[in-house]
Amino acid sequence: MRHFEDFYVGQTFRTPSVTLTLEAVLQFAGQYDPQPMHLDTDPGATGPLGPLSASGWHTACAVMRLMVDADIMDGAPMLGLGVDGLRWPNPVRPHDTIAAELEVVSTRVSGSKPTHGVVGMKVTARNQHGEIVLAMQPNLWIPRRP
Amino acid sequence: MRHFEDFYVGQTFRTPSVTLTLEAVLQFAGQYDPQPMHLDTDPGATGPLGPLSASGWHTACAVMRLMVDADIMDGAPMLGLGVDGLRWPNPVRPHDTIAAELEVVSTRVSGSKPTHGVVGMKVTARNQHGEIVLAMQPNLWIPRRP
Repeated sequence: MRHFEDFYVGQTFRTPSVTLTLEAVLQFAGQYDPQPMHLDTDPGATGPLGPLSASGWHTACAVMRLMVDADIMDGAPMLGLGVDGLRWPNPVRPHDTIAAELEVVSTRVSGSKPTHGVVGMKVTARNQHGEIVLAMQPNLWIPRRP
Repeated sequence: MRHFEDFYVGQTFRTPSVTLTLEAVLQFAGQYDPQPMHLDTDPGATGPLGPLSASGWHTACAVMRLMVDADIMDGAPMLGLGVDGLRWPNPVRPHDTIAAELEVVSTRVSGSKPTHGVVGMKVTARNQHGEIVLAMQPNLWIPRRP
């Protein structure tokens, strides 16, 4: 298991990739973001994002899954304190394949609980064309080495 | 349909409520955040959040659904440019019921596309005990009145 001391500014990780199928896009939108721009499969649909796109929350959840699969904690829990700067610079379309890069941008021992530390990461997810589809800066809560 | 001009700082909205069933918590976690703290139903489980809790991304998606159901755009698309300050101050447990309050905290005409405006909102979701389970500040992209 990795501890706080195993992370350093500049460290990077890569996740595996995932393809968002049309079925998955529609299922997610139906459950959590039922708006026409995420549900209307008519090729002539002209929503604010153009043709059918995945919910941005679907993209975020898919990236979370990729981060779990990347196992950067080496078996320890990956516990997020919060996320800043969540952005969706480009829409995800059905059949797009996305993968993420993670970079450690800050590390600090917790002031309130010195047995733990906070690791700030910059997450950048891209589609198969290299376009950024999601960016965010999560802060992870990580035990220090005993 | 509501336009940019229909929003003003201090305006508030309330969403309906939703109960996160154990089945939904496990299904979401299995798909998007498969970590023991979100999957282990053993009452003696001692993860970093105590007994079984919902993924924070599940809470975020449930709140998104409540915002869509609240229909604050009155039929127009609710398009998020991004989210700042996403926090989960308290965990959501299976069977918890959550609802959100939305408050407009900023409004500005887009500099790059003056046909649109950006409305900043503060979203606060609470459980049935009044405890805050999610806070975030999304920015919505909204057409101006023609």
